[in-house]
Amino acid sequence: MPRSTRRRPALTHPATEEIDLFDVLHALADPTRMTIVRVLRAEPERACGTFPVDVAPSTLSHHFKVLRESGLISQREEANRRFSALRAADLEHRFPGLLDTVLAAHARTAEAAAPQV
Amino acid sequence: MPRSTRRRPALTHPATEEIDLFDVLHALADPTRMTIVRVLRAEPERACGTFPVDVAPSTLSHHFKVLRESGLISQREEANRRFSALRAADLEHRFPGLLDTVLAAHARTAEAAAPQV
Repeated sequence: MPRSTRRRPALTHPATEEIDLFDVLHALADPTRMTIVRVLRAEPERACGTFPVDVAPSTLSHHFKVLRESGLISQREEANRRFSALRAADLEHRFPGLLDTVLAAHARTAEAAAPQV
Repeated sequence: MPRSTRRRPALTHPATEEIDLFDVLHALADPTRMTIVRVLRAEPERACGTFPVDVAPSTLSHHFKVLRESGLISQREEANRRFSALRAADLEHRFPGLLDTVLAAHARTAEAAAPQV
């Protein structure tokens, strides 16, 4: 993701009780965003440019924005890098079992077993 | 839904093993389609024009198409009417627990308790 000296807008996150189910389902209904969620399920946080996805930086930036605004991930900036983390506890509080069930469903698909394209 | 004498295209349905998770999540990521799914969860089938949703016929027709092509519902025509049914068993076979978990998540939202808009 390219870095510049221009000021970035503040990163906004919905409060846990404001997480919208339709936003979450929409955010999960995309293979790239699902990959990001699966990666973040396995580790506490990760720098944005280091995910195993093969999309243009502007597209990736859009995917992270959709995930953050849905409440699925949180993001923070540090030393000119942006880190993402899954809001697993918030999601579990808001919609118990949803994230695990969707990830289990995804694990049953061929796409989950195939190498990243 | 308006009826005419022109021939309609055949109704296509994905096989159970071809039901795509991203299609299902996308289909569920809409309030009108969620209402249709919730109604069909409670009864075996229902004629298309009788759902408690307030959208234009062409919009409703699109929603049914998205639901059918995702594998969430089946449709059949009889006596110039189209009936829809939830493919609950197929969904449960393909993605165990997914539909119930999403419906339970939806029941926790304010939208679920509010009157249909």
